This record gives sequence, C-alpha cells and structure tokens, in this order.
Amino acid sequence: MTKTLLLAGGVGGARFLRGLSASLPSEELDVIVNTADDDTFHGLHVSPDVDTLLYTLAGKVDPAQGWGLRDDRFDTMDALEALGEDVWFRLGNRDLATHLFRTTSLQRGESLTRVTNRQREALGVKVRIRPMSDDRVRTIIHTPSGKLAFQEYLVRDRARSRVEKITYAGIRTARPAPGILQTIARADRILLAPSNPFVSIGPILALPGVRGALRQSRAPIVGVSPLIGGRTVKGPADRMMRGLGFAATPRGLVNVYKGLLDGLLLDEQDRKHQRGLLADGVAVECLPILMNTAAKSRQVAQAALAMAAGLSPSSRKAV
Amino acid sequence: MTKTLLLAGGVGGARFLRGLSASLPSEELDVIVNTADDDTFHGLHVSPDVDTLLYTLAGKVDPAQGWGLRDDRFDTMDALEALGEDVWFRLGNRDLATHLFRTTSLQRGESLTRVTNRQREALGVKVRIRPMSDDRVRTIIHTPSGKLAFQEYLVRDRARSRVEKITYAGIRTARPAPGILQTIARADRILLAPSNPFVSIGPILALPGVRGALRQSRAPIVGVSPLIGGRTVKGPADRMMRGLGFAATPRGLVNVYKGLLDGLLLDEQDRKHQRGLLADGVAVECLPILMNTAAKSRQVAQAALAMAAGLSPSSRKAV
Repeated sequence: MTKTLLLAGGVGGARFLRGLSASLPSEELDVIVNTADDDTFHGLHVSPDVDTLLYTLAGKVDPAQGWGLRDDRFDTMDALEALGEDVWFRLGNRDLATHLFRTTSLQRGESLTRVTNRQREALGVKVRIRPMSDDRVRTIIHTPSGKLAFQEYLVRDRARSRVEKITYAGIRTARPAPGILQTIARADRILLAPSNPFVSIGPILALPGVRGALRQSRAPIVGVSPLIGGRTVKGPADRMMRGLGFAATPRGLVNVYKGLLDGLLLDEQDRKHQRGLLADGVAVECLPILMNTAAKSRQVAQAALAMAAGLSPSSRKAV
Repeated sequence: MTKTLLLAGGVGGARFLRGLSASLPSEELDVIVNTADDDTFHGLHVSPDVDTLLYTLAGKVDPAQGWGLRDDRFDTMDALEALGEDVWFRLGNRDLATHLFRTTSLQRGESLTRVTNRQREALGVKVRIRPMSDDRVRTIIHTPSGKLAFQEYLVRDRARSRVEKITYAGIRTARPAPGILQTIARADRILLAPSNPFVSIGPILALPGVRGALRQSRAPIVGVSPLIGGRTVKGPADRMMRGLGFAATPRGLVNVYKGLLDGLLLDEQDRKHQRGLLADGVAVECLPILMNTAAKSRQVAQAALAMAAGLSPSSRKAV
C-alpha cells in the first residue's frame, strides 16, 4: 500500500483534498491540517482549517465562499449584534454547533485530535484528517501598527496591513499531535497543498520534530503552487511573500520552503519559471491549477500524485 | 413615589409582570428574579427566568410557549444533534445569542447583575429586572431515583419523578445581589408572582437576609395564586405541593409561604377557600386569574396593586 500524506490549510487545501480523496482509497491518505489560525470567538474554539477540510469532504461546504456551511443562516450573529457584541467573525447557525461541540468537548478534557475525529465520524468523512497539534499555537501577524491574531488580520482588517513578520506563539513548547511524526515517517509521498506557505503550511513545518521527520523521510515532497501568474487565487500569500522578502513567484515559493520541495506543480501561466526551478533542482509540471470544479480538483491531484510517483526517492538526508 | 417590588420566576411571573409594567411607571417597579434554575447547557450559562421576563417585556417571547423567542429556529441544535450531542435542552438560534453573550461576559468577570442589565438595555426593557444573586445557587430535586438538577427534572424528564425534597445548593454562602436587600427595605408593597413557590419564589426567600428584610418591612405582601381549581396553569407546583405535604390549595400555598402573605389573589374557581384564608389572617380577592391575554394580565396586576393599597401596613415585625 502506497501512503500519501498531505499537509494542508484551509480553502486551497480543501479544494486540492477533494480531488485527492476522489483519486485514492481513504486508507492510503493521511492529512495533517494547520491549527495555528484557531481562535476563540464568542467564547467558542474555532478551528477554521479543520472545519473547511471536513465540511468540504462531507459535501457541506458553502461552494461560493469555500468555507462555512452551505445555506447556513446567521440568526445567532444578528441577535448577538443586537446585544451590542462585536461580530466581525460571523459564525453561521449550523456552523456554531461545530464550535459548541468542540468547545464543550475540549472543556471536558478531550484532545483536539479526539474531538476532530468524532467530528469527522459524525460527518461521515473517511479520510483521516488530523490537527497538527493538540497544543495551542497561534499565528501572529506583525504589522507597522502592532501585532494581530491571524483572523484579526485576515477577516477583521481584510488583510490590509503590511506584514513585517509572522511568528507562531506557543510553537516551541507545542508537540505534534499523537501519530503525526510516525505518519510522516511512513509516508511514501508527501504533498504540500496550495495553501498559504506562511500561515497554513508554515506552522506545521515549524512544529518541533516535523522538519526533522521530513528530512529523515525519503518520500518525494511535491507542492502545488498557490500562485497563478504571480497572484494567489485567494488570500494574502502573494503580499506576504513580497512583504517578507520573497518574490511572489514559484521560485520564491521554493525559497520559502527552504529546499524542502522535490517537485512543484505550476499553472500554465507560470511555465516561464520552469527553467529557474529546474536550476534549483526542483522538478516541474505545468497544467491549469485553478480548482474551481471538482473535476479540476481531481486533475490537479492526479497530476501531483503522478509527479510524486515519477520522482526517485529524495536525498534530503544528505542536505 | 410608591415603590412596588415583585418577586418572580419564569412564565407565570412574566405573564403577571407584563400586566404590572403596563400599570405602573417603570421607575416605580422593581423585580427580583429567581436564578436557582440557571444551568449550563452546551457550555453556555442559561438563566431561564431572567430571559423569560426580559423576552416577555421586550415583546419578543414565544407566545405559545411563554418562554424562548418568537419565531426562533433550531438549526444549531439540529446540527449539534447530528454531531451526536444530547440536546434535550433545546436552545433556539437567536436565543443562543443571549447565552453566548451572558457566558462570555461572565467569563470576562462581569457579574450576572451587570450582564442582565446590559441585556435589559439592549432589549429596550425599562423595568429594573435583577437576578436574585450573582452567586450560583442550584435547585436540586430529590426523587426516589436520586438527585436531579431542576431542568433535568422539568425539561428532560418532564416532571415525571416524584419529588421527595427540594434543596438549594449553594444557598448558604450565596449573597443577595447588590441592592436587593435595600430594594426590599424601600418597597411600599411587595408582590409574589403566580410562580412556583418552591423553585421560583422559594430560592429568593431562602437567600441569606431576604426573609429578615421581608420581616423588617412593613409593606403589605400580596401573592397571586399559581393555582386554579387545585391545579397549576403550567408546571409542576401542584404536584410538588402534594408531594411535600401541603394541600394543592390556596391555604396550602399560605402554609408554604409560612405566614408571609398579607393578601392573596385567587381565581373565581377557588372562592370556596376564602373563609379558611381569612381564618389564617390572609385577605382575599377573587377574580379570573388566567392571564392568557395582555388585557387579563393587566386586570390581575391591577387587582393585586389595589389589594396591596387597601391593606394596612403589615405587622409581621411582631410575628
């Protein structure tokens, strides 16, 4: 059995994962999901990336937004607003149930891994999607006017602030969730979803032991670019790259990942970057990577799987 | 200015209060509301009686149930149930906002009095409705098969268990909320709503200092019977009375209140009890007391006010 491991964040990760899960038996697929943009809203523990992946695989995600639940309503938020609360982070009625479930389960002493697993089973999702850690890690966005929690930066302030630095509060003492390092060690191929490299994939890689486990692994590591023509499909990754001293290009992405990538899937529009990447020792495939339909998600996932299958065992150990 | 004080529980209290607030300027009315049936559901602090009074005065209460919000939906509860949670205590979408608001405010260190006051202002309710205590008191129903929290007994088990004893956990160390004892001392007339004498009015009376303040007061105390023809309009008070060794009659009610009442408003159907009550030294008026319309609520409230106005200052001090 060939084991595929995906590291993923939110919407881009979910779009890729829906193609991957349609292309592989669920027992051959493991997913580690970022939890560093988890936060507490209205007293509830919200895990945006976990929910986006699970809602997507369960077929319940809001197709227009890519997150939240399809046809959800916002009665509770409207009523909270009428009570004078600040509701810039708006949670749908049915979505709220997820956060109530998670919050009360965590308060009872359950781990996030266990809660997520129960949530996964209740949603009928077969693919093992696991939070990166049961410990709290928080992405902090440093801007000229101060530090922001990631959701404050992204949702409340609509990513308008200049990003000077990104740190992960709690990362030094956080432990990878149970089984995460073993899952990396057992993987035959490792895929990085087209998620934000700093705030989605970055926290997973920064967990103590994860980079070491990836270096130990001989599995090829293939990424899918979150960029099309120098811009991200969604979210502020391109601006973050430029702000933090990288080009918003595939080669910039390779630099962000510090030589971790053996291969990279690019959009057709970025074919011109192929030579530079090959010079970096990174294999390249070009195809349309915008995953705005399930069929396109499958095509991109299958291209990533084929690329990984075609790469010889990695020699990162020597790096 | 004549000051009227109402002690009240949930639905019966709310039906009476809506008549009272229509009959008095809001600055002449104070309400102390039971909080001993507060409980935590889905991680949220629910104050059923506070909400029933406030929703009623705000004109937002579900008219059929007498509690909860009109036209509320239950999307969150349905989704929680799908996640495998036990949702016997079902909270509506918009009602949930109240509990999220209260819970996060309490977690921030606000008192229940302050949270309730903010809730009251947001709902545009002018009448000062105050929780009896900022400390947690919990009504415990002792049954042949063990102890139950009040909502377990009432809502989950639909009041089917035999009630052997009722206690108020936490009552000995609970303090009346700020201003409660002074409000009692300043009142010119004191009304007991047609609420359950054990689980609605009982906890207020059992708070340290409250009975003493009532004994010190010379204000007439007038109750409205929760019974019509030996049955409560709503809820298990009649069964509780019988189970705890009282007759489910107006005279039984006087006994439950241990001589506190100077006057009692009865339903026409209970006129036959008038003589016995007069023998107990309790003044009586009879009128239709079912408050199924706003007009009837006003009639009952005005009868209670008139009765209190006609009674001479009480001589409880001598008791």
